[in-house]
Amino acid sequence: MITEEFYTAHPIGFVRSSLVDLSDAPRQGSEGAPAAVVEVRDDCIPALDGIVPGSELIVLTWLHLADRGTLRVHPRDDLDRPLTGVFATRSPDRPNPIGLHRARVLAIEEGRRLHVAPLEAVDGTPVLDIKPVLHPDAVWRG
Amino acid sequence: MITEEFYTAHPIGFVRSSLVDLSDAPRQGSEGAPAAVVEVRDDCIPALDGIVPGSELIVLTWLHLADRGTLRVHPRDDLDRPLTGVFATRSPDRPNPIGLHRARVLAIEEGRRLHVAPLEAVDGTPVLDIKPVLHPDAVWRG
Repeated sequence: MITEEFYTAHPIGFVRSSLVDLSDAPRQGSEGAPAAVVEVRDDCIPALDGIVPGSELIVLTWLHLADRGTLRVHPRDDLDRPLTGVFATRSPDRPNPIGLHRARVLAIEEGRRLHVAPLEAVDGTPVLDIKPVLHPDAVWRG
Repeated sequence: MITEEFYTAHPIGFVRSSLVDLSDAPRQGSEGAPAAVVEVRDDCIPALDGIVPGSELIVLTWLHLADRGTLRVHPRDDLDRPLTGVFATRSPDRPNPIGLHRARVLAIEEGRRLHVAPLEAVDGTPVLDIKPVLHPDAVWRG
């Protein structure tokens, strides 16, 4: 999908994970995703001030392996389920493949390597943003 | 912040709202944001299949008026609060100014104009993605 207007997102870091194949990645973080590391660029370290072990975060990624031309999918690749618009699903294939992951910080190394869990993104996935969860007691997983 | 690697996000639509000045926009949707319209591009209409009035959505925007060079802020512009990394706050000023808004669909016009509430984004804000809330009963507001 091409429009004249566009915005340029620069990764603020990358996911380091034992998940290397898309086929190994669970659909949602709660479905067996491992712990992973969000490795933040040196020049973005000041933006992490205030994040501590135990923090509940929303990690926004750019799902760089996704198909941006997909507008409808069978949810969870189940052909028995009707074609559904990608905006009504969590399919990674969508015009702007932004991944939304809720994860908890387990530890922080060298001020820039956030160990988090769960995170269902493959190794090398670019990270665009990190936000705090405003209501950490909620069960909603992002 | 410039890196050699980047990703290009094309708006899938725009916010139409009575909010026109940043100074009028509340900090969070729950703090008095009005209803607004998410107007989706014609070519993305198929991606809306399955969204109906009552759907709980996460709307991802590109906060085009934000300052991308800001790495630390006084939360809520309160100088009595210590400087905090933007990744530990919901400040719109951040390296990739992606807005995360939880809203409910009130009505759908012409198959592409989603009336939603609340939405604390100013008129003309680009929309990058729309996702379903997976646990609509949760109080977490995105």
